[in-house]
This record gives sequence, structure tokens and C-alpha cells, in this order.
Amino acid sequence: MANVLRNSAKFGFSGVLSQLSIHSRHGRECVSPCFSLQQRNSSTSPKIKVDLDNSTGVAVLRMQSPPVNSLSLDFLTEFCINLEKLEMDKSCRGLIITSTLSKVFSAGLDIMEMYGKSPERCGEFWKAVQEMWLKLYGSNMATIAAINGSSPAGGCLMSIGCDYRIMADNPRYSIGLNETQLGIVAPFWFKDTLVNTVGNRAAELALELGLLYSAPDALKIGLVDQLVPEDQVLSTAQDTMSKWLAVPDHARQITKSMMRKQTIDKLLSNREADITNFVSFITKDSIQRSLRMYLEMLKSRKA
Amino acid sequence: MANVLRNSAKFGFSGVLSQLSIHSRHGRECVSPCFSLQQRNSSTSPKIKVDLDNSTGVAVLRMQSPPVNSLSLDFLTEFCINLEKLEMDKSCRGLIITSTLSKVFSAGLDIMEMYGKSPERCGEFWKAVQEMWLKLYGSNMATIAAINGSSPAGGCLMSIGCDYRIMADNPRYSIGLNETQLGIVAPFWFKDTLVNTVGNRAAELALELGLLYSAPDALKIGLVDQLVPEDQVLSTAQDTMSKWLAVPDHARQITKSMMRKQTIDKLLSNREADITNFVSFITKDSIQRSLRMYLEMLKSRKA
Amino acid sequence: MANVLRNSAKFGFSGVLSQLSIHSRHGRECVSPCFSLQQRNSSTSPKIKVDLDNSTGVAVLRMQSPPVNSLSLDFLTEFCINLEKLEMDKSCRGLIITSTLSKVFSAGLDIMEMYGKSPERCGEFWKAVQEMWLKLYGSNMATIAAINGSSPAGGCLMSIGCDYRIMADNPRYSIGLNETQLGIVAPFWFKDTLVNTVGNRAAELALELGLLYSAPDALKIGLVDQLVPEDQVLSTAQDTMSKWLAVPDHARQITKSMMRKQTIDKLLSNREADITNFVSFITKDSIQRSLRMYLEMLKSRKA
Repeated sequence: MANVLRNSAKFGFSGVLSQLSIHSRHGRECVSPCFSLQQRNSSTSPKIKVDLDNSTGVAVLRMQSPPVNSLSLDFLTEFCINLEKLEMDKSCRGLIITSTLSKVFSAGLDIMEMYGKSPERCGEFWKAVQEMWLKLYGSNMATIAAINGSSPAGGCLMSIGCDYRIMADNPRYSIGLNETQLGIVAPFWFKDTLVNTVGNRAAELALELGLLYSAPDALKIGLVDQLVPEDQVLSTAQDTMSKWLAVPDHARQITKSMMRKQTIDKLLSNREADITNFVSFITKDSIQRSLRMYLEMLKSRKA
Repeated sequence: MANVLRNSAKFGFSGVLSQLSIHSRHGRECVSPCFSLQQRNSSTSPKIKVDLDNSTGVAVLRMQSPPVNSLSLDFLTEFCINLEKLEMDKSCRGLIITSTLSKVFSAGLDIMEMYGKSPERCGEFWKAVQEMWLKLYGSNMATIAAINGSSPAGGCLMSIGCDYRIMADNPRYSIGLNETQLGIVAPFWFKDTLVNTVGNRAAELALELGLLYSAPDALKIGLVDQLVPEDQVLSTAQDTMSKWLAVPDHARQITKSMMRKQTIDKLLSNREADITNFVSFITKDSIQRSLRMYLEMLKSRKA
Repeated sequence: MANVLRNSAKFGFSGVLSQLSIHSRHGRECVSPCFSLQQRNSSTSPKIKVDLDNSTGVAVLRMQSPPVNSLSLDFLTEFCINLEKLEMDKSCRGLIITSTLSKVFSAGLDIMEMYGKSPERCGEFWKAVQEMWLKLYGSNMATIAAINGSSPAGGCLMSIGCDYRIMADNPRYSIGLNETQLGIVAPFWFKDTLVNTVGNRAAELALELGLLYSAPDALKIGLVDQLVPEDQVLSTAQDTMSKWLAVPDHARQITKSMMRKQTIDKLLSNREADITNFVSFITKDSIQRSLRMYLEMLKSRKA
């Protein structure tokens, strides 16, 4: 049971308790031996740290919100503000996203944002998730995900929102849109982004089965572009970025927009309906009951 | 010549006599050394046998219509009735489709349904073909094709209508939408399903050349998902199905619908036009003449 | 510097001078050690030679416009006239496109057509580029590119406009839509054709980075279908063509149209806007200045 909990704790976005045991069949290693209900502190210490190197024009955005970089509303808001600042800073041309945490890039959406919250608050949260993706997938900067740990669900969405993905060559790290395993459905724009990345058939299999791919398997289906030893993830991202920045910005930006505009426009023109769908799903009594049971188990395990 | 006939006899859906010799260049082994005009019996013995295991929720649908499981109107009607029954049976969550015949999964559409028939009858037939695909591609059940023999044309369509394809690892078995080789054109929804499965470029090559792929080649382009020794096709399908059924049904079904709805809707909104197109093509004098010559050759060979 | 010039001279369609050095980082060998500003002769000697073998129904179109088969307005006009003649010739069923030049298939659009020309003339030129692609991508003939040398930019567009691509197995030859490297953006129909050929993700990487692929790398991503020793490119194309022509023309043509119509229609319904876009871009002062500097460098190098 503890193993199930530890495994399930990987997912910020988890739904139906009875289905959590499903995931453990995959036998992936827990990303941390001491996962627990997030020890939330109310400190105002930033969840994200950004360093912009003015000589290269490359910013490194480090996610540093223990234990698993869960995408809470606060986290997403901070993420989007930082992204917007960099986007408007003419001296910044490239963005590398990575994690300061051991073994995890981001565990995805924060379950606490979905339990016992008002519909308004849930809607606000979902809008922030949309905003994160819209800003990232449509960024004028060259964007590289330096995936130095596991990256399920929302963490995977963040990764495939970038232009390029470099992952630590560690078979214990996994990545994927595994929502289905948890009784949840990845929304259409998660799906569209995955199809754009790995093609229709691989996306169909990945989404219907809610598959998490080990780093080597992720490379095989094209979910990540490159594997490197764990201690070289960031330096390789820096090297790769210099190749991206060797391409004239304007031409690259127009080309990127040409490739991604249709997918982005689809969410933009369905944004409110997408929020309504999410809120009506997540506030269902049955889903809330499952979330409560799940959280109580996490608490009792802590105690 | 006999070889040509035997080869061409693989295709229920065959058109222009003069082009039949084309196919033989592929040099695929005949799926049966004794192919002939189907010995039709008017018995009411079922062409399909369904076994539902209530303990697992998995039904096995066995096609048992010798010699080659041709998709006749009767066959398709029986197939669709069985599919509908299972679809409405809450205790059935997964469907495995396989064949009881040696060396053949299904040879595709039955040529006899297209020769000397009234336009009304041809239209009825085509509607049944559409129905088979609509029911299968849009099924709420998890569906696995256990392809234990050759599967050209309509047999391939049935296979790619499933969620997953396991084929016997026998290079003498082939699969593909080979209509073009026979002077016929696979309709748009055959094409869409193939593109969804193997991607645009592989589908373009496959359809323009009417390629039949040996089992190993089919695996290479992703036309099937897995090869196993012939005697393990069904058991592997059972094992694989248990993985599919470990995913919560509701989430899997919504996800499947999200992946396939657009393709299904395209036929639904063009269904009548698609029937009209087929009927006007197949009832052409030139096509009917070719069918007659083809059938006479099959008969003379039998005699 | 000379090396940069030689490298950049590969591209008929080159834009911003300051970016030319970017390309040289790829370290591809120059396609010719003696590249220079094209020695234009005003002779009326044809830039294209066509041989139609009436016994096979196969025409071989040889591009023979030294030094690099640049796609000038004259060249494109001649190309389109020849294509149209063959298209209307019932005895011609297949077309093989190749080059008589050493080491180069086609270097793409001719920079001289874009420098110092009136908007009207630029528009006329762009219309001819569109026409070349429309005729080729929508041809009723089976079309094979016998790529016996490098094929950047417009040369790559011509290649992926065919039904099948056979390239010389020489890692010094490269192919790709490298416009972005030169500060230019491949228009949407270049992009659509590439996506149709190699899929969305490979096209995204190729276009955003303006990648030129060595022959082996081009095979890996599916940009070409087959590599053969240099002296067997044409004979392999002939052999391959006989397989294509074994398929009934009518069925192949309808199937090809079904696969490509949507992509073709998209340009047809946006043709004027596409011309306007190109003309307004290429006649910009900044772009014209870059072209002049580039040409002056080529001239000074010659002197």
C-alpha cells in the first residue's frame, strides 16, 4: 500500500482512488523514497529561480518547489509572470527549463488545487494551466526542456510545450501523459500537443493507456529528443541552445508560429468551454469523494 | 495462370481482370493451396462465434466462414449484430477478433456481393461495410485484432479498426489495403484510418502502390503493433487485453473518442454520398464485365 | 570566408548576409570547388532535356543548367512547359527527374530573380515557383526524383513534390528546406509538403533550424526513400518506376489525388495572397540590401 501511495504521489493530478493501484503495475521506481503530502510553507520564497545570461541571451528557469514541483496556482502564476518578463526582454532569446530537485522535473498539477475548492477557484486554477501552455507553446524564445527527473502529466505537458527536450539517461525517470490511468482525461490541447510531437498512433496508444515511458522508451517514440548522462543535462541544453540561437530569430519565430498556430488557436477559441468542462468534472461529488479518500490516506501515512 | 488466380483469390474485393496479374509480382505465397470460388452453403450455421468470459469481461469473436472469411452481406450483418450485442452488454469490456481458419484472418470484401447485383443491393452491401467500420472504430470496448493469417483489403480495414494489432510472426502472411493493385480505390475512410495508424507518408506509399506487407514489414511501418509465434497470437491478445482493461473504462473511452471522433464524423456526414459513389462505380459495365471474366476463370479453374 | 561563400552559393534562395556564416557551421562539403556567380549565357540552349521512351512510357527529365540548376524564371518556365507536354501525352505514364551536373541536383531558387527586380517581375517569378510545385505535386504521372547531388531549398521542394525519392548514397550530398538558416521563411505549402513527407515533428525541427540533412540522415527521417550508389541512381529509378507503372494508372491517380488534394487546394485558394506576401517581403529595403552585399561578395570573389 505504501508503495502505491508513493507511486501515486508522483501525480499532482490524480483522480479516482480505486484506480491508483493500477499505476503501480507499471513498476516504475518511486521518484523519491520520502514522498508525502506536500509540506506547504506559507513563506514567500520563490518557487522559481531565473538566471539570464546577458552575454548569451539565454535564461535558465529553475523550478525549486519541493518536494515535486507540483503545479499549484501559485506556482503557475509565478511561472507565467517569469515567462512573460523574459518574453518582453529583448536581450533574452532562449529559455532552458529545468528543476533543482532531485529525481523530479515536475510531478504535474497539484491535487490540492482541485479538492474542496469552489468552482470559481477551480476555474482560476485551470485558466492558469492553460496560460502556462499557451505562453510556452507559443513562445518567441527558443525553448529547451532540460528534464533532469521524472515528468508525468502536467510535467510532460510542460516538456512538450518546449521546442526541444533533453532528458537524463536514467531508466528510473519516466515521462508521459498518464491521466487516463488515474481515471482522468487529458484535454484536447494536451492531446494535440502530444500528436504534434509523436504522431497520431503513438499518441493514441500513450493516451488511451495512460502510459508513462522510461527515458529510453520516451526517446524511441520521439517524446524526448535526446538522452544524456544526468550530470550533463543542463550543459547539453546550453550547447544545443547555441545552435538554436544561430538561426535568425525572426525566421525561426515565424516558422514556429506557422507550425503551432493552428493548435494554439484551437484552445484560444475554446478556452471558456474548456474551463467549464474541467470545473464541472472536477467538482463532481464522486471525484471529490475520491480526492478526499486519497488525501486522507496520504495524511494517515504521514502520521 | 493458376498462380495468378490463386493469388487474386485472396481478395474479396477485386476489380479489373487485366490487372490481376500485377499482384502476383509481389510473390506472396498463396494463403491456401486450394482457393476457389467460395463453396457457398445456404446453411444457417453462424459465420461468427462469440465467447464472452464473464469473469474477465473479455469476448473472443471468431470468424469461421470458410474458405477465407469473405465479408459478404450476411457475414457483415452477423458481425454487426454480434458487435452491437457485446457493446450493449455491460459485462463485456474487451473484444478480441480472430479467425478459426488456417492461414487467413479475412480476405476482405466478397466479390459475389458486387457482381450482377442491383444498385439497391450493392448499396445495402456497402452500407454494411460502413457499419462494420463505424461500430468497430468507434467501439467503447477495448478491441484487439489477433491476426492469425493473411488480412488483405477489408481484412486489413477490420484490423486497423481495432485498438491494437497482434499478428502471427509468419512472413507468408500479409496485410494491407491493396485495392489499388486491383484497379480499385480505397475510399477516404479506409485512407483516413490508415493515415491515423501509420502516418501520412507510409499511407501514401501503401495506398498508391496497393502494397501488401509481410508480417515483419507490417510491424516495421506500424501497421501491426506486435508479432508473436502463430500459436501464441490469441494468448498474447488475452494478456494484452488485461493491460487495456486495467485502465478505467470511462477515461479510456473518452480518450478514444477524442482521438477518433473526427475521422468517424467525416464518414457519418458523407455516408450517403459514399454509398452513391460506390454503387455508381461498381455497377459500371466495364467493371461488371471484368468481374464476370474473373468469376468465369475461377469457375473454369474449379472444373 | 571563401568557404562561407562557397557554401552559401549552394542556395539560390539566400537572404541575409550576416547569417550566411551560420550555414558553414554545418560543415557540409561544398557541392563544387568552383562555385561562383552563375556564368549566365544568353544562349537559347535548353536548360532541360527530356527523353521519353515510348516502349516503357517513362520520360527522363534532365536538368542541365550549369553551374547548379538554379531555379530561375526561365528555368521554371521551361520546366513547366515540359511537364505540361508530358502530362498531356497519353503515352507518358512516368517521369524521372534528375540532373546532368556533377554533385548537384538543384541548388534551389535563383537569387538573381529576387535582386533589383520590380514587384511585378518578382510576382511573376513566385507564380512560376508555385506553378512548378502545383504541376509536380499534382501530376497524374508517377514521378520519381533521382537525386544525384545536393538538393537544398527549392531543390528539396522539387524532390518532395515527387512520388518517390532515390538519392545517391554520398554523405557529402545534402538535402533540406534550409530557408530559415538564411533568414527566410519557407512558405506554408513548402511546410505542408514536408509535413506530409516526414511528419509534423521532424518537419518542425527541420524548418525551425533550417536543417540540411546528409543523404544518410535524410533517409533516417524519411526525407528520401532510398539510397543507392551514385552510378545506380538513374537505373534504380527506372527499375522502381516499372513497379509504379504496374499499378493501374486510374486507381493510382485517384488515390494520389485523395492523398494530396487538400494540400494543393490550400495553395490554390491562397495563391494571390501567397504571391503578395512573397513580393512584399523580398522587395523590402533591408532584404534587398542584404542581397546586394551578398552578390557583391560573390563578384569580388570571382575577380
